[in-house]
Amino acid sequence: MKQDSQEYKQRKAFFEKLITLYGRNVVVEVLQDSSIEVHKLHLAKSNKPDGAIKKIMQLAKKRGIEITYHEKNALSRISKNAKQDQGVAIDIFSKTYQNADAIKELQEYRLIALDGIQNPQNLGMIIRSCAAGSVDGIILPKKNSAKISPLVIKASAGTLFKIPIYFCDSLENVLGELQDTTVYALSLEAKNSLYDLKPSKKSIFVLGNESEGVSPKVQQLCNDSLIIPMNRGVESLNVAVTASLIAFMRS
Amino acid sequence: MKQDSQEYKQRKAFFEKLITLYGRNVVVEVLQDSSIEVHKLHLAKSNKPDGAIKKIMQLAKKRGIEITYHEKNALSRISKNAKQDQGVAIDIFSKTYQNADAIKELQEYRLIALDGIQNPQNLGMIIRSCAAGSVDGIILPKKNSAKISPLVIKASAGTLFKIPIYFCDSLENVLGELQDTTVYALSLEAKNSLYDLKPSKKSIFVLGNESEGVSPKVQQLCNDSLIIPMNRGVESLNVAVTASLIAFMRS
Repeated sequence: MKQDSQEYKQRKAFFEKLITLYGRNVVVEVLQDSSIEVHKLHLAKSNKPDGAIKKIMQLAKKRGIEITYHEKNALSRISKNAKQDQGVAIDIFSKTYQNADAIKELQEYRLIALDGIQNPQNLGMIIRSCAAGSVDGIILPKKNSAKISPLVIKASAGTLFKIPIYFCDSLENVLGELQDTTVYALSLEAKNSLYDLKPSKKSIFVLGNESEGVSPKVQQLCNDSLIIPMNRGVESLNVAVTASLIAFMRS
Repeated sequence: MKQDSQEYKQRKAFFEKLITLYGRNVVVEVLQDSSIEVHKLHLAKSNKPDGAIKKIMQLAKKRGIEITYHEKNALSRISKNAKQDQGVAIDIFSKTYQNADAIKELQEYRLIALDGIQNPQNLGMIIRSCAAGSVDGIILPKKNSAKISPLVIKASAGTLFKIPIYFCDSLENVLGELQDTTVYALSLEAKNSLYDLKPSKKSIFVLGNESEGVSPKVQQLCNDSLIIPMNRGVESLNVAVTASLIAFMRS
């Protein structure tokens, strides 16, 4: 029994590391990029094997990638996007996509944590700016958040696999478990300015949902709240802009 | 004859200051916002006077706004967006929207100039970040650039009328005419870092097209090129993020 449980855990750890993408053009791009490690290609049985599908099958064969065939609705359960999957999905691995437990091993970090970001373009832009700037990684909950999708990848402009993305089920659990870490909520109600901050050795900056901001549950786990001072009575910044200003802080 | 020419110039100056918006929801929002000065409402004769159109007519009547009726294709020439105008367009004024000639009167400025920005969301985000940050205005050419549209207004999150927007026909003319001004091109090929810069009293930062960067003609008129240093081999930043980093520079 114990061995079974061990095996189950390993299988779970394996599958939670997979990112499933979909759509014909996206899958062609993935298959053509030899730096992306592919686990499995999924095709709907109803696909006509011509055009893009033919190309996809040839590319997969060339790379020795396993293809599995599914009924249309089973394929949609895999892609989780029946409207846009075009009968094609692909599971990929990324070394930079990892369980947030790995943060505990780090001695020093400046991380961005996302609390309910819904817009895929914002998520992609956040990834791009954090990869380019001085942020060590992004904590991305699997629940109640935009998922890594073709739209996110497009907005990230090819930077998705350049920066550690720490996945978790809920942000509360991660923030509650990390030791010696100062957690800052970016908040429009905060009194302290981001620019007066001397970040601690282990810092996490929490960015909240586009409309609602940081959720009350997560706010409770934060040590401090920070605002980016704004001129002309402007009420808020785009969340990806806020992430960028943090990523390019000169301190 | 001289008087006629004078009158012509005045009329031209009046009309070039108008911003034409379109779409039923947008027009309802504009009419409900008493801070927005409206010149004229345009309706297609083919609109059925119920639902949103009825509401629009009531709002316009209440505010004493002139309504003119057009054939569908004439309305589309006014909106310049037949696909999305829904038979409704509105001309508005904004005190912050002005001819770039006005820059010559300023003693000190830090401006962002846009050279071929195409994406309305980027333009809206640039306006929002510049309004919130320490930029004194945006130079926006009328040609070869995203125009102020409902999409731009949405992405600007209500900040469009909070910051001076200097319109011009072409950026080259404006940059060529300004005295004592240092013009910086943001360029991925630049050697000098934005963060080492001590901006001069009159500074203009030129941001280029999303794919092509600053055009060769405009580049020739720049005094210096600047880069934002990036980590992890990331090749570029979103143009609205670049504008935001300039708008929130700590110098």
